[in-house]
Amino acid sequence: MSEPVPQQAQAFNTAAEAAAAAPAPAEGAADVAAGPSKSELKKRAKEAEKARKAAERAAREEEEKRAREAKEAEDHAKQNYGKLPLHQSQERNGQVRIKFEELSEAHVGQRVIFRARLHNMRPQGAKLVFLAFRQQTHTLQGVLALSKENDEHQVSKQMLKYAQLIPTETIVLVEGVIKSAEVKSCTITNYEVGVQKLFTAVEVGALPFSIDDAARPEADFERRDENLQFSRVALPTRLDNRVMDLRTPTNQAIFRLQSAVCHYFRNYLDSQNFIEIHSPKLQGAATESGASVFKVSYFNGTAFLAQSPQLAKQMAIAGDFERVYEIGPVFRAEDSNTHRHMTEFTGLDIEMAIEEHYHEVVDTLDSMLLAIFRGLKEKHAHEIEVIRKQFPCEEFLFLEKTLRLPFKEGMKMLREAGATDSEGNPIGEMDDMSTENEKFLGRLVREKYKTDYFILDKFPLAIRPFYTMPDPVDPTLSNSYDFFMRGEEILSGAQRIHDPTFLAEQMKKVGIDPSSMSGYLDAFKLGAPPHGGGGIGLERVVMLFLKLGNIRRASLFPRDPKRLSP
Amino acid sequence: MSEPVPQQAQAFNTAAEAAAAAPAPAEGAADVAAGPSKSELKKRAKEAEKARKAAERAAREEEEKRAREAKEAEDHAKQNYGKLPLHQSQERNGQVRIKFEELSEAHVGQRVIFRARLHNMRPQGAKLVFLAFRQQTHTLQGVLALSKENDEHQVSKQMLKYAQLIPTETIVLVEGVIKSAEVKSCTITNYEVGVQKLFTAVEVGALPFSIDDAARPEADFERRDENLQFSRVALPTRLDNRVMDLRTPTNQAIFRLQSAVCHYFRNYLDSQNFIEIHSPKLQGAATESGASVFKVSYFNGTAFLAQSPQLAKQMAIAGDFERVYEIGPVFRAEDSNTHRHMTEFTGLDIEMAIEEHYHEVVDTLDSMLLAIFRGLKEKHAHEIEVIRKQFPCEEFLFLEKTLRLPFKEGMKMLREAGATDSEGNPIGEMDDMSTENEKFLGRLVREKYKTDYFILDKFPLAIRPFYTMPDPVDPTLSNSYDFFMRGEEILSGAQRIHDPTFLAEQMKKVGIDPSSMSGYLDAFKLGAPPHGGGGIGLERVVMLFLKLGNIRRASLFPRDPKRLSP
Repeated sequence: MSEPVPQQAQAFNTAAEAAAAAPAPAEGAADVAAGPSKSELKKRAKEAEKARKAAERAAREEEEKRAREAKEAEDHAKQNYGKLPLHQSQERNGQVRIKFEELSEAHVGQRVIFRARLHNMRPQGAKLVFLAFRQQTHTLQGVLALSKENDEHQVSKQMLKYAQLIPTETIVLVEGVIKSAEVKSCTITNYEVGVQKLFTAVEVGALPFSIDDAARPEADFERRDENLQFSRVALPTRLDNRVMDLRTPTNQAIFRLQSAVCHYFRNYLDSQNFIEIHSPKLQGAATESGASVFKVSYFNGTAFLAQSPQLAKQMAIAGDFERVYEIGPVFRAEDSNTHRHMTEFTGLDIEMAIEEHYHEVVDTLDSMLLAIFRGLKEKHAHEIEVIRKQFPCEEFLFLEKTLRLPFKEGMKMLREAGATDSEGNPIGEMDDMSTENEKFLGRLVREKYKTDYFILDKFPLAIRPFYTMPDPVDPTLSNSYDFFMRGEEILSGAQRIHDPTFLAEQMKKVGIDPSSMSGYLDAFKLGAPPHGGGGIGLERVVMLFLKLGNIRRASLFPRDPKRLSP
Repeated sequence: MSEPVPQQAQAFNTAAEAAAAAPAPAEGAADVAAGPSKSELKKRAKEAEKARKAAERAAREEEEKRAREAKEAEDHAKQNYGKLPLHQSQERNGQVRIKFEELSEAHVGQRVIFRARLHNMRPQGAKLVFLAFRQQTHTLQGVLALSKENDEHQVSKQMLKYAQLIPTETIVLVEGVIKSAEVKSCTITNYEVGVQKLFTAVEVGALPFSIDDAARPEADFERRDENLQFSRVALPTRLDNRVMDLRTPTNQAIFRLQSAVCHYFRNYLDSQNFIEIHSPKLQGAATESGASVFKVSYFNGTAFLAQSPQLAKQMAIAGDFERVYEIGPVFRAEDSNTHRHMTEFTGLDIEMAIEEHYHEVVDTLDSMLLAIFRGLKEKHAHEIEVIRKQFPCEEFLFLEKTLRLPFKEGMKMLREAGATDSEGNPIGEMDDMSTENEKFLGRLVREKYKTDYFILDKFPLAIRPFYTMPDPVDPTLSNSYDFFMRGEEILSGAQRIHDPTFLAEQMKKVGIDPSSMSGYLDAFKLGAPPHGGGGIGLERVVMLFLKLGNIRRASLFPRDPKRLSP
């Protein structure tokens, strides 16, 4: 479409003019003057009569043909289909348009209007077309059948032909009557729509791949069936054409679930008197570790992108906000090209003042995660089912009362199961836990405790960040914890050191010059209550809950060292 | 504090040892050998007797003095005050600690425990100290009175002395009994706490300014009263010491209100089937206008920080998510040093598919803002009241049914009121509206319609971005709108052009090479439904609702061209 001016809905109905003004039949042979012989005359008269009849017949046939053609060309359905003008908000009639997910018995026999994508089409002979219309995770069968009579809802041959030429993914506006039906090829299996009007609202260009191919489960590619034919859409192709990829029912469900995770996260924390904060991502100094921080040209100077809201949320606690959370982007300039690393992801961070014990924080984080898991399981069964079709996996198990294992106990379980370190030696109880051993422990815990979600508490102090509060009794341990889903860490947290003198000492021990983090220390010099918290990666939670296998599948427009678009 | 090992609560009680073991009195002068004269002897005996008595008296006095001192030194209250050891989560007793905001009649006569800041202190002679304890926006009066008897809740002279030396802002742990009272100097006016235990939980260093000074209304500085003495805390000083500044009741309230704005924003949109998205802030190309975009070093290349989620949310619509919102940071590399510009702020963005008319979007945005205003007014009256003490202003007016003015109508009102352009000429109805005239219009509208909130609709196409959908009838107008609060624009939005061919033409008209935005165009080539949306600046809404006068006051840790910390 090249002009923003409104166009007629009937614009495509070009064949409908030319109603035949049939010529008047050539009538009578008329009188003939004297001349030729009688027999000649007779012969001539006979021929003339023959010619006259032939002409008559020809004229009649021509007339019949024209009438037939005219009748065929005349399209009583022309008001029922076609291309809509560019939508410029021409009018507002308060037309009610339904969503497929709302369909119920009450709609049976009712005329409905909806906007949808044309998902696919199967012509059945010349008089019938089956269409599948798609709205997000739902598809509804449409039946377009040639009308026997002329009425205002007539479906003509031309309309059938028009429908068959609509490319899939076109956005259509449909009017029809809902009928009870048994449908196998759509997600809505108990209704179909008898299509009476079908307009093209938005046209599409060339498609990079089909939605059906993009939504195919991996298992399909492993079936050795010579009769199966389809394309596999590689992840980079999907991500290059992410807008198209996002339309698969799987992705529609994944990002509804991602949105729900944030919803339950906030809902729980709001109920616990947390407030939401928004901390700046532009930082004057590189915090924690300078190596993995992105540099920004900031007018005539340099800024850095925050690796986490750690500092800001601790300052908010020193600023007396008591309990805060933040949902926001987190940036990591690590050149890691793995299935679980991105350069930008969504951090769900919380920090809270402690009254007596850091287990108040662990309790809060645990209750918050349980609220998320329960919410997803109870209110998002449809989305989970849709996603499982493409990414089948065992159900995510969690207990009523979450398992909490001391770190040493976890190491003991691993050792007894024969786990070794990267060099093949038996692991010590104070070693760092490798990613491999974390996964191994996840399997051991699932087997023994029937849960995919548990907490490791009391990590060795030596393997935690400098600001981690040591255990009050055993100085080699710390008041810190990790939370695991399916054997992968999703949350790391601790009670923080709130005493500036002690904090500076701990910095020195790990080779950080306290003066390089004076802003951080200054916040504690003004007096911060004892506090703790933790951070979750949103995409990681979604990936692990659904077992998507690659973090990019849980990110709307993922960013990694090699990808900055779309 | 230099060591993380637990210390005794009585550590400060250094004077309490040394209970006097009084020496036995020197008794008897004993026998004397023969020698001197009788009178001499008599004299000597007299003197000896005198000396003996003097010694006895001295000893008795000494004994009394020591006993008195010992009694005074003995501190039966030593278990009731002192410095707590570093909080390392030593124990968890499930101690219930109250929040001042929970205090009610039911607490009268009850013993309570709470953690608070020492807000200030007023000694009244040697036997009484008034303390004010602070929790966020609330202060509670504490009374520390010397006990007459010894009991377990005794308050000793030493305890009184200890209390008087605690610096303000120290975090204290207090135990006491709630009493009914009439209090003028605290926000809680009907209760006070009779303090029985008072421990220092977290000490503070030197303070940059006092909370009282930081919370003082501007009007105080305008009072010409020679007896008044206090310091004015300049905004840069506040921002340099933001952690301290954030503790004022005003700031405690401002950021609770800011959090509430996001809460109502999401609550309303969730109820309308929106989903929350998180779009990447790292972009491969500079969008919209390259001049005001921050550059990021991205491994061996360059990335840019997103100026808005405009492109991403439109792609989400093309990706069939129908209705999306995002709350996230927005970056503007503009060297503007004004009261209303920051280089990073929080964008509240929405985008939605349109069925019939872009006024569906206007309706949604309007209902969402009304939900925010009503929520703040109905459920955050306390916070608003606290803020008004420092920043007094007229109540924010809004109507049950929001005023919607056509742009031309707004210009007409301005013209009739004598508004001129920057050169003093009368304004034309299709001119751009200057910031000054926006404010003027806000005053005119408030006067005429009694509202601080209204919508201008149908802006001239020429003054809107290239992707704005033209009006279907008048090609010089557009399907676009701005929302205003107190005469300042808080939301700008429009129906967007969803047709790629038309979009490319509009780009060319404003001098943008369509190939430079091929990623943007590609999304529409795959077919996007008609859609529209808008973006709000969170800090701006908060600033204008509360009339804070400077956007930095509505930002936790503001960023501008000259400020990157804390």
